[in-house]
Parts: sequence; structure tokens; C-alpha cells
Amino acid sequence: MMHVTPPTRPPLDEGFVASLRQRFGDALALGEGIRRQHGTSEAHFAEALPDAVVFAASTEEVADCVRLCVAAGVAIVPFGAGTSIEGNALPVNGGVSINLARMDAILAVNAEDFDCTVQAGCRREELNAHLRDTGLFFPIDPGANATIGGMASTRASGTNAVRYGTMREAVLSLTVVTADGKVIRTATRARKSAAGYDLTRLFVGSEGTLGIITEVTLRLHPIPEQIMSAVCGFDSLQGAVDTVVQSIQCGVPLARVEILDDRQMAAVNAWSKLTYPEVTTLFFEFHGSPAGVAEQVETVAALAEANGGGEFAWSNQPEERAKLWKARHEAYYAAVNVRPGAVGWTTDVCVPISRLPECILQTRADIDAGSVPASILGHVGDGNFHVIFSIDPARPHEFEEVEAINRRLVERAIAMDGTCTGEHGIGIGKQDWLVAELGDAVDTMRVLKRALDPQNLMNPGKIFSL
Amino acid sequence: MMHVTPPTRPPLDEGFVASLRQRFGDALALGEGIRRQHGTSEAHFAEALPDAVVFAASTEEVADCVRLCVAAGVAIVPFGAGTSIEGNALPVNGGVSINLARMDAILAVNAEDFDCTVQAGCRREELNAHLRDTGLFFPIDPGANATIGGMASTRASGTNAVRYGTMREAVLSLTVVTADGKVIRTATRARKSAAGYDLTRLFVGSEGTLGIITEVTLRLHPIPEQIMSAVCGFDSLQGAVDTVVQSIQCGVPLARVEILDDRQMAAVNAWSKLTYPEVTTLFFEFHGSPAGVAEQVETVAALAEANGGGEFAWSNQPEERAKLWKARHEAYYAAVNVRPGAVGWTTDVCVPISRLPECILQTRADIDAGSVPASILGHVGDGNFHVIFSIDPARPHEFEEVEAINRRLVERAIAMDGTCTGEHGIGIGKQDWLVAELGDAVDTMRVLKRALDPQNLMNPGKIFSL
Repeated sequence: MMHVTPPTRPPLDEGFVASLRQRFGDALALGEGIRRQHGTSEAHFAEALPDAVVFAASTEEVADCVRLCVAAGVAIVPFGAGTSIEGNALPVNGGVSINLARMDAILAVNAEDFDCTVQAGCRREELNAHLRDTGLFFPIDPGANATIGGMASTRASGTNAVRYGTMREAVLSLTVVTADGKVIRTATRARKSAAGYDLTRLFVGSEGTLGIITEVTLRLHPIPEQIMSAVCGFDSLQGAVDTVVQSIQCGVPLARVEILDDRQMAAVNAWSKLTYPEVTTLFFEFHGSPAGVAEQVETVAALAEANGGGEFAWSNQPEERAKLWKARHEAYYAAVNVRPGAVGWTTDVCVPISRLPECILQTRADIDAGSVPASILGHVGDGNFHVIFSIDPARPHEFEEVEAINRRLVERAIAMDGTCTGEHGIGIGKQDWLVAELGDAVDTMRVLKRALDPQNLMNPGKIFSL
Repeated sequence: MMHVTPPTRPPLDEGFVASLRQRFGDALALGEGIRRQHGTSEAHFAEALPDAVVFAASTEEVADCVRLCVAAGVAIVPFGAGTSIEGNALPVNGGVSINLARMDAILAVNAEDFDCTVQAGCRREELNAHLRDTGLFFPIDPGANATIGGMASTRASGTNAVRYGTMREAVLSLTVVTADGKVIRTATRARKSAAGYDLTRLFVGSEGTLGIITEVTLRLHPIPEQIMSAVCGFDSLQGAVDTVVQSIQCGVPLARVEILDDRQMAAVNAWSKLTYPEVTTLFFEFHGSPAGVAEQVETVAALAEANGGGEFAWSNQPEERAKLWKARHEAYYAAVNVRPGAVGWTTDVCVPISRLPECILQTRADIDAGSVPASILGHVGDGNFHVIFSIDPARPHEFEEVEAINRRLVERAIAMDGTCTGEHGIGIGKQDWLVAELGDAVDTMRVLKRALDPQNLMNPGKIFSL
């Protein structure tokens, strides 16, 4: 963690605190322990504590909290599971953290319509456990057991976006508390609509800066009849990527396809006690009917062989698949912990897939010229990959080194017509890159922010400075 | 067409016309014939002529035209192919129509990245003809050979949205001329991004009211190895819808599934000289590998049989498929022309699919209680259907009757948590229903409109009044 002296702020107005206490009673917390839980993140950012935490239990409570804060000119920062990576939920200007974890109800499951509505604090693993008997599932899987509201607000995706899309595609409708304390619903449950501006997509990815998401209606998908996973090592990165591109060209509906470089495989083997060959590797998952999956597997295996792939390790056993994807999900911890006591830093560029091998190879060379251990893994079907650095916090120059590598990586991705962030959001860490990437379009975003939050109280200091 | 006296307006300022002439020369048209072409629509709305038409050839020309109009306080209405259905491109407040038909270039095809970039005036059929050799296609198919810019601005979809999504999912990035005459690009070519507000989705569906789309980057899909179409009549509407829902539950990736009622089938038979049984009918299309399509077909045929479906008429011959979908695409004209000289009016609700049979049956009863011939067809996989009325323009009370049936239909759809418009947009005709559907969320849309277009010059009078 970098050590930064937080700006000094006056304490909260006593009358304001009294009004919060009157409305929320014990659901208002002022103690340092709880404030600290809401002022740290899993990433490398400095602590930034809220002045108070409100544990909201309903949309009405969120709206009341927003109204009180806005009347007092106090900042409001929504908090879900605290698993975001770009400091998205850190109250850098203090104010009130609204913790939505108690709002974890599953409000409706409409199986015949392939949708459900949940409160924002519902977590994705709990949702999928609840859905199991319906034969449906919610596919978006960022690894962490994040809240649905948090996933919507950072436009999260993860390992199976290549088949099922991201939160952009998964959200049908939102209930949002706006900065003026009103409650709006952005859309109906219709699967498609041409009714006015797409407020749903405007709030998805807005990181709490335009309003607070309190309920989410999600598209669901049928649980596939057959699920098959596979692991395959490759001679070269280019061969692995070509296998994926050619598979998509052949119409293979890959459900998941993850790339892990040799160092990431070594870290995974060590962390998860596995024995995979430590070479550039693809993790696949195939969904479909038994015959359909067999056909997908045959096509991909043939393409892999033609592109320098080794033997496939197949599995259609739930336990083995679970082990594989658990290893993949723990890859971040595996990579950070190649050095004991290290701090993690993960990058997040996404480029057109044709540029992916070049982008990864140049980045690997840049990493190898430095001193900080790092491994690479990514969602190759989307062109999105992460470098995970394992930083020794006792060596401040390592932060500088990583910052410089990340800067060059983001510049490289933008030059390839890619983005600085495929799925983590802008938060605190990517604000300069947002401007480098989108130029004057960021001014248009600022116009929207000022119009919807004229006092700049909704998660201020995120996405951009005003 | 309803006869409405247009509001009288002062003529355009001479200095403003001179500045347009200086910039655009012969690409500025003031004659009544050309203005009339830009002031009528295929639907039942009254004529509304622009004061001038500019044929733009580049983004820079659009930006210059916007700057001149904004400086003079003159309204600006983008015009593509003129195929929109809710009066979306009618200059109800006069001003300048910017015709984008000359901006029809295909700027880039990135086959390995499954994307392309086109100018807004490029039409979808021309794009697909151009793409054929790449093995890719652009799937969104609203029937009409609309421009890509027009399709983006109304968030169009059509017959294969059930598999490939709508323009919401198809657009990766836009180049937009904003109301202050700036040119912004809303995103990069990365397949996914979490970089700030989703301006792409904000402009998709905004009907030219926030800015003018001049370039569009689209997602493309591999042309399926095998395409099979099928037609099947049903005993009941419920049986047809149940077949679709159960097919989706079984994971069948239906590429197209259209429902046509008995009257629509009669109209189609008469118009396209076909001999289908005149009962509630599903038109299917299946995409995949030969084995995959065979499996889909087997599943759906078994489900149809269990739900009161008749014999399937299959085809995998391109000519026969083309004939089938040509008949489907001409269904609108077939339905309107059941009475010679009639005027068409089409509705556009979309409801959760579980409510579709009830919504259609109640609507059918309402139609049957009236005097105006009407048929029903729809995109059943999405819950979106159209009633096509064939109105005798010599009988003004028929417009009133249709208006009342449409009002009851929209109220019915909204009560079922559906939308007043699945794919045609709000335009002129659905403004009251937008408010009925989304309530206070429309105020949020108005805040966005005022912030991005403070003078209300971008396609004014559409989506909502300010």
C-alpha cells in the first residue's frame, strides 16, 4: 500500500450526525474499526476512511440517507462486498459510506421469462445457489463473490463474458436512487426496448457517481445440459490466440477461454498444488448438449493441434471442473503470493483480439526488463488480460516501476484501439488514461455528471475530477 | 395520413441560408420536392417539411452544418433511409434535415476482430453484400434496408434479435457530432470496456436528440455453416409460445422465431402468392454446424408436436429460405394492402414472454370488436409483437378507433411490465406512453437532454417535449 497523507477534513456537522442517528439508529456506525473496513481495498491504494457508515436495509433507507447527505453537502459512497480493484468504493473525500450488504434479498425469479430481480447487496454465488432448482443460472463471474449492485456499477465481467456478455448485457433494469433523492426505475422487464434514453446502460459502469443502484433485474440463462472443461498448453502465445480466433470463426460458442502464461501457471501450481506443465496455457469451458459439446471439443482440439497445442486434459466431472476454476479464480492470490507479504497490483487492458499476442509479448518483455515478479492471465476471447505484480511494500521503488510498466501498457493498448480497463473500471487509478483513451468524450461525461449530480456528492473523485 | 395544419414558421434567415450555401454549395437543397421527401414518413403521421436539406459527405460537414445551425438557433434533424415508423425523422419544428445517404462508405473491416466501421449512411444490405467474402455478417435485420446510423439511433432490432441481440449489443463505438459541434468517439474497438460512462449506449436509441451519429463500429458474426428454416402451424397461440419458451429452456439457440396470426398468414399468402395453412404459425431459422442444426431441429420439432404444432415445412436451400423471409419482410405491406389504398399503422409493444399469449389474445379480441382490419405478427422470442392496421384514409373515425385500440394495447403491455416500443422508438407517436411506462425516469432523461442540447435544437419534439 502506498503511504499518502489523507487530506484533513472538518468533522461531520453534529446536527447532521444527529439526523442520521435519528433515522438509522444502530444502523449508523461511527467507530474507527467499521470505518476502516470501508476505507481500505484489496488493491494498492492508500486508506481513505469515511466519516460514517450507514447500513441500509431498503431502497427507501438509501433514498433517505441520500436526501440527508445532499441537504448537508456530505459525500455518499456506496459499498457492496469491497472487492473492487481500482479503489472504486474508497471514500477519498470522506463522507458517508452506504453499506448495502443487508439488502441481499432475491425479490423475484421469473423462470419462464429468464429473469430475476435482486437487491443490490445480493452476492452472485448466493444468487446462483438460489437459482439452481429453476434450471437457470446467472453467468457473469468476475471471480470474487461480489454483490450484484457492485458488479453493475463497475460494469464487471469475467471468465465467461466471451459467451454470455458482461453486466452491460446482463442487466435488464435498475432501481436507482438519484442525487436528488428520487427513486427511479430505468426500464421494464421487456427483453428489449426502444423507449427513450438507455438509462440502464448509463448507470451500469457509472461507479456510483450518478446515483446509487438499489435493485437489479438480470437476464438469466438455462444451465447447460453438458459442461466440459479442458486445459491445453501451447508452444507459443500466438498459437494459443490463433486457436481461439479460429474457434470463434468456426462458430464454436466458447463459454470460457482463459490464457495463463508460464509464470502464472507456475504460481497456480504452487498455490493450488497442481502439476500442469508450466507453459502458456488455455483453460476452456464448453456448454451445450452432449452432442454439441462433443462437436465443439473436436473442432477446438483439431485447431489447437494445428497451432502448436499439446495434449488436452478434459473433464466433465463437476468436482474436477470446480477444482480447475477454483485454481483460476485464485490465480490472483497465487500470483501475488509468489513473494511472502507482497502487495498485489493488477492491470486491466483490453485490445482487439488481433493485437493481443503483440500486446502481451511486448508487455512480457517490459516486465522482464524490470525487477518485480509478474504473471499474465486473461480473458483471451475478449482481448482482455491482466498483469499481476507481486510488490514488496518495503521497496517503494517497486511501486514506481510497476506504475511505469502499467503506463506503457495502457499507452500500448490505447495505440492498438483498446481500452485501459476491460472490467475493473476507472475508479481512482485510471483517470488520466480515460482521457488519453476517449479525449473530448470525457467532457461529455463530465456534462452528464454535473447535470445529474450538481453538488458532486455521489462518490466524488471517481472516474474523473471535475 | 392525418391532416393537420402545420404551425406557421418564419422563413429561414437569409444570412443563415447564405452561410449554408457558401459551405455546402449544391449539397444544400431548398426546393419543395426534396423538402417533401424529407418531410413524409412511411407511417400515418402528418407531413412536416424541413426548411432546407443538406446532403453531408463527411463527419466534418455534419459538424460544420451543426455549428452553423446552432449559431443561428435552427433545428437539425438527421435523415437516413426514411424507413422509421414513429415519425422519428420528421422535422416537426422545421429547420435543416441533414441527409446522410452520401456517407455510405465502409471504412474498415477487421475480420479477425469480428468488427467493422461504417459511415452512418451505409445500408445494412450493402454492408452484408460487402462482407460476404470475409465469412462474416451483420445480423441485425429490421426488414427495411435501413441505414446503420438510423438503426443505431432508433435502437433497431428485428427478426434475429433473439439470437444476436439488438443495436444495443451490436454497436461497439460511435462517432458523434454533439450539439456544440464537437466530434467525439464514444469508445474504442475493444469488445468490452469499463472506461467511464457508456456514451455508446446513451446515443444508441436517442433518435438524434443528443447529437448526430456519423460513424458506427459494429460487431460482426461468422456466417453459420448451416442455415435451416422451417414453418409450422399451431392449434393455439399458447402452444406456439410454449414451444418457443421450452426451446430456449432446452438451450436451443434459435436464430429467428416469428409468430404470424391467421389473418397475417392470409395476407402473406395473398401478397406473396404462397399457400401456407392460414393458422397461427411460427417461422423459424436455425444457425449452426450441420450436426448442431439437426439437433436443434429435432428438439424443436418434438416440442412443437407436444404443443399442438402441425407438420414442419423445412428448407435449407438458400432460394427457398430467401423466399420465406422475403414474405416475412413484406408482411407489413401484405397486411396494409388487404384493403386497396389503405394507410398502415403498426404497434410495437414488448412484454415478458410469459405474458405474451395473454397480451396477444386480449388484443385480438379488442381488434375483433372493432371495424378496422388488422393482423398480428411478432418476434416471439423477445416478447415483441406488432399489430398492423389497414386504415381507409377516407374514414377519419378509423384513425380514432386504431388510436384507442393502440392505447389499450400499450396500457396492457405496461401493466404486464412491458414496454410501449420494442424496436421502433418513441418518435412523435409514443411520448405519452414513455411517461406512463417509466415515470420519473423520464425527468432524468430530460435532464440529460437539457445538459447536452441546451438550446433544444437536435431533432426537437422527439421522445418528449421539454
